[in-house]
Amino acid sequence: MATTASPSTTTTPRSFLSSPSFSLRASKSNHLRTTRRLPVNVRCASSSPAADTSYTTKVSRNANIAKLQAGYLFPEIARRRAAHLLKHPDAKIISLGIGDTTEPIPEVITNAMAERAHALSTVDGYSGYGAEQGEKVLFGSKVKIAVQDPSYPAYVDSSVIMGQTDLYQQDVQKYGNIEYMRCSPENGFFPDLSKVPRTDIIFFCSPNNPTGAAASRDQLTQLVKFAKDNGSIIVYDSAYAMYISDDSPKSIFEIPGAKEVALETASFSKYAGFTGVRLGWTVVPKELLFSDGHPVAKDFNRIVCTSFNGASTISQAGGLGCLSPEGLKAMQDVVGFYKENTKIIVDTFESLGFNVYGAKNAPYVWVHFPGRNSWDVFAEILEKANVVTTPGSGFGPGGEGFVRVSAFGHRENIIEAARRLKQLYK
Amino acid sequence: MATTASPSTTTTPRSFLSSPSFSLRASKSNHLRTTRRLPVNVRCASSSPAADTSYTTKVSRNANIAKLQAGYLFPEIARRRAAHLLKHPDAKIISLGIGDTTEPIPEVITNAMAERAHALSTVDGYSGYGAEQGEKVLFGSKVKIAVQDPSYPAYVDSSVIMGQTDLYQQDVQKYGNIEYMRCSPENGFFPDLSKVPRTDIIFFCSPNNPTGAAASRDQLTQLVKFAKDNGSIIVYDSAYAMYISDDSPKSIFEIPGAKEVALETASFSKYAGFTGVRLGWTVVPKELLFSDGHPVAKDFNRIVCTSFNGASTISQAGGLGCLSPEGLKAMQDVVGFYKENTKIIVDTFESLGFNVYGAKNAPYVWVHFPGRNSWDVFAEILEKANVVTTPGSGFGPGGEGFVRVSAFGHRENIIEAARRLKQLYK
Repeated sequence: MATTASPSTTTTPRSFLSSPSFSLRASKSNHLRTTRRLPVNVRCASSSPAADTSYTTKVSRNANIAKLQAGYLFPEIARRRAAHLLKHPDAKIISLGIGDTTEPIPEVITNAMAERAHALSTVDGYSGYGAEQGEKVLFGSKVKIAVQDPSYPAYVDSSVIMGQTDLYQQDVQKYGNIEYMRCSPENGFFPDLSKVPRTDIIFFCSPNNPTGAAASRDQLTQLVKFAKDNGSIIVYDSAYAMYISDDSPKSIFEIPGAKEVALETASFSKYAGFTGVRLGWTVVPKELLFSDGHPVAKDFNRIVCTSFNGASTISQAGGLGCLSPEGLKAMQDVVGFYKENTKIIVDTFESLGFNVYGAKNAPYVWVHFPGRNSWDVFAEILEKANVVTTPGSGFGPGGEGFVRVSAFGHRENIIEAARRLKQLYK
Repeated sequence: MATTASPSTTTTPRSFLSSPSFSLRASKSNHLRTTRRLPVNVRCASSSPAADTSYTTKVSRNANIAKLQAGYLFPEIARRRAAHLLKHPDAKIISLGIGDTTEPIPEVITNAMAERAHALSTVDGYSGYGAEQGEKVLFGSKVKIAVQDPSYPAYVDSSVIMGQTDLYQQDVQKYGNIEYMRCSPENGFFPDLSKVPRTDIIFFCSPNNPTGAAASRDQLTQLVKFAKDNGSIIVYDSAYAMYISDDSPKSIFEIPGAKEVALETASFSKYAGFTGVRLGWTVVPKELLFSDGHPVAKDFNRIVCTSFNGASTISQAGGLGCLSPEGLKAMQDVVGFYKENTKIIVDTFESLGFNVYGAKNAPYVWVHFPGRNSWDVFAEILEKANVVTTPGSGFGPGGEGFVRVSAFGHRENIIEAARRLKQLYK
């Protein structure tokens, strides 16, 4: 587990935690370059090699965590990227894998945060504990969830950790006691609800990560009816709503009756580049009630007041900057930039004869490689073009045969990646 | 549950959530005054009165949350404060209740945060997802915890929410399946470990909130041995370590062997005024192993990489500012200021003939009111002196007969509060 050369040398956390995400940050940006970044090469000083320690506590490991498969998807991709870099130290890797924003935050927003930081040094401007936010173990371990398949891995992995699921079944690549709702080109990336059994919770992300599909008003009306007929709760993730180009709903609450069956969560991450700043929001309608009539919002509030003290006040100041007229305009510019990136990627793959999906309403291009294993395609693109993507099967069995190409990147890197992909697949 | 006047009027969240914490922020500071604070009066627009909605989902409420008693302690105190203010609108309430810092953050620290904010608007300075941090459901629901009694309520309440406990027993004011380790003047605020049965997890906070007691090197050596003999894991909370004035250990890891039995968590909240900025840290030694040999740190890492994306990068920049030589000195000044407040409060109560505890190594004064109900004393001090304190029983049955007076406040408010208390108890 821990590896040390000798008691007095240091160990990196990499081998120990099997996650190179720390040391990778320095080279995360496309092309290695010197930046004023936070020091990220963490080294742990170990005075006694853990290998010599035979003592274990008598505390059993949380069996739910043991159910998880390998590492979380994105650290796994980071590992492979790191391994590739070790073999090819001069490779100019371009990452279109993890959906991490790359463009600077508009000044109207960072000025608001800097101003708040300075104000914290004044008597009148100082504030302490703020309004609480966040979510923890709201629904408990005895609920069953449904997810889109493919879907953002955190829904499934959190459900496993919470003890809501059974063991992973290797043959079908699914955890027991989760309902996986297949979304594919054949059904327009909206599940056939007539074939979906009742679950307590339904996670629904639209525009979707990873497929990029945005559900229509008709489809969401069906979903709300389905939830109402079954007495289920929809957890609606609208993190990419600002990327919508057509008249697809931007919120589940555009659908009549949704307040009785849904809560919605969203984020500034992909609009304002807040992936590091950290700010999002969740809307829990008063009308949303548990089976005994108790409002979900009350339990939500109870948890966040106990276990959490809210997002950083500086981040919240940034949020207010985002919501100013100038800030809204600035976010639209940021979104517009990434949408232009998306178009370049779509055009590239289409010109090569691929069937691509998503893209129109999301910063993700869902590329079909029929009959191919998605990790093999991931490896091929990394090794031959030095471009990082995300294998579709990492998002669930419904992702097999697809690769997600994310559109976050500096324009020159997107253009260069497009050039390399054209070369690779010409 | 929800109350609305009519469909078209707005409702405040206060009555709905039974937590006035939102609207109170504007008046949180001692004495009402105009400040440039974030708008905090949240009003929810409701288009259909919830009272008319008969529809409930079929999702059972998380039974663990239902076990919790009333509201979390500090929102309850806030409610009482608000009620008092309603009756006495001109009262100049001074809050020595919730341990919220009041003094501005030193400029060396806020400058670092403002600089980071500005840097996020530059190409070279922008960063996205950062190193993950945090903790969620590390130990699962099948572990039993021990806490000091009295203790910071979040340990117990989180355990209840996680499903680790049985029901609350009104007669003894304890949850079933938690071991409460009495800490009192009689045992020098260190539990008699010979009378404590084995639990999986032992929460230990030193210097202690609320008693202010700092465990000695001998006592912590006993604790580590106790954990080792039982195969238990200590969760050590050292949030107030910088307040230590004598040679009490500032970290559990000063004790030999602690790495095999403990993890430690701490915070910048009470050193740098980061109660709103939000930044802390947790140390999980590689040597800390579950019963099957699996390192606790690996599961910790797995959870934080799945469910959390780390503290805000701006807050982390502030943390780096704190750890600069100038920042460390600035934090010592902040701590020194609150320690002087503490002395004023101690002197006040001692001059009135009370037995007081804590204070020397923490920003809390633990005042004994023998034979009296602590909520009664809380009410008396609030109603007759307009000073908010925290009733000891809110921290567990071992707190009955005591009141916690926190030393966070502007100097003039501490002096005024002292004057009023002298008047009240002369």
